[in-house]
Amino acid sequence: MTTLWNRAVSLESAECMRLLSSARWGRVGFSAPVGPQVLPVNHTVLDGAIVFRTDLYSSLADGTRGTTVAFEADELDDRMQSGWSVLVVGMAEHVEDRDEMAQIFSRMGEPWAPGSRPLVARIVPSQVTGRRFQRD
Amino acid sequence: MTTLWNRAVSLESAECMRLLSSARWGRVGFSAPVGPQVLPVNHTVLDGAIVFRTDLYSSLADGTRGTTVAFEADELDDRMQSGWSVLVVGMAEHVEDRDEMAQIFSRMGEPWAPGSRPLVARIVPSQVTGRRFQRD
Repeated sequence: MTTLWNRAVSLESAECMRLLSSARWGRVGFSAPVGPQVLPVNHTVLDGAIVFRTDLYSSLADGTRGTTVAFEADELDDRMQSGWSVLVVGMAEHVEDRDEMAQIFSRMGEPWAPGSRPLVARIVPSQVTGRRFQRD
Repeated sequence: MTTLWNRAVSLESAECMRLLSSARWGRVGFSAPVGPQVLPVNHTVLDGAIVFRTDLYSSLADGTRGTTVAFEADELDDRMQSGWSVLVVGMAEHVEDRDEMAQIFSRMGEPWAPGSRPLVARIVPSQVTGRRFQRD
C-alpha cells in the first residue's frame, strides 16, 4: 500500500484496443439478480470485438445475453510502478450461427479455464477508454 | 490462447478474504449511467471490509455511494497455469466520519494512483465467492 502514481494519461481508442489484444485475460462486469458481478475470462480480440468462451449454464452466460456489459483488462506492475487499464462498455451477445462459431473457434484457440465451455460470447465495444499510469 | 485449466476448486469464504488481503489491487464493478463499469483500485482489507481511496468527483465516487457493487481480485499466472479469483458483492459507502477516516488513513497507507484521492470508500461484503484454478 505504498505505491504512488504521479501521472495517469488517457489513451486513444486504437491504443486501448491494441492493449486489449495483447492481454491474455480480462474481466467481464455484468448484472446478475444478486448484484453486479465481475468475472475473469480468457479473451481474444477478433475484428474489433471481444470474444470468449464460457459455460452454457452460468451466471456469465446469463449476464451476456443481449445486454450491455463492461470489459476491463489491465497490466499493473507494482515494482515498476507503471501500468495500464482499459475499460470497454458494449453490447454482449451469444454467437449462435454455426459457421461463424466454427470460424471463431479456429481463430481464438483454447479457453483458459476448465471444462469444454461451448458457449461463445462476444462484446461489441461502444465505448473504449483507457489510462496509462506512470511515475515521473 | 492455449492455456488449459483442468480444475477449478471453490474456495471457502475465509480463504477468499485471506487472498483479498494479500492482493495489492482489485477491481470495482458498479453501475453508471453509461452502463456497467469495472475500474482497478488499490485496496486494503480492514476489519473484514474492503477500503480504497478515490477522487471526490469521479464515476467511481458516484458508483459507490450507498449501492451494491462487485469487487474482484485475482492472481492469474499464465506460465504456471495456476491462479485464483475472488468475487465480493456488497454494499458500498463513503466513510465520512472524521475520526474513522483518520484511523483508516493511518492503517491503509497511500493510494496506488495519482492525485490526492481524498474520498474513502468501503465495501462491506455480503457475498464472498472464489475459485482456485489448477492444472492436474
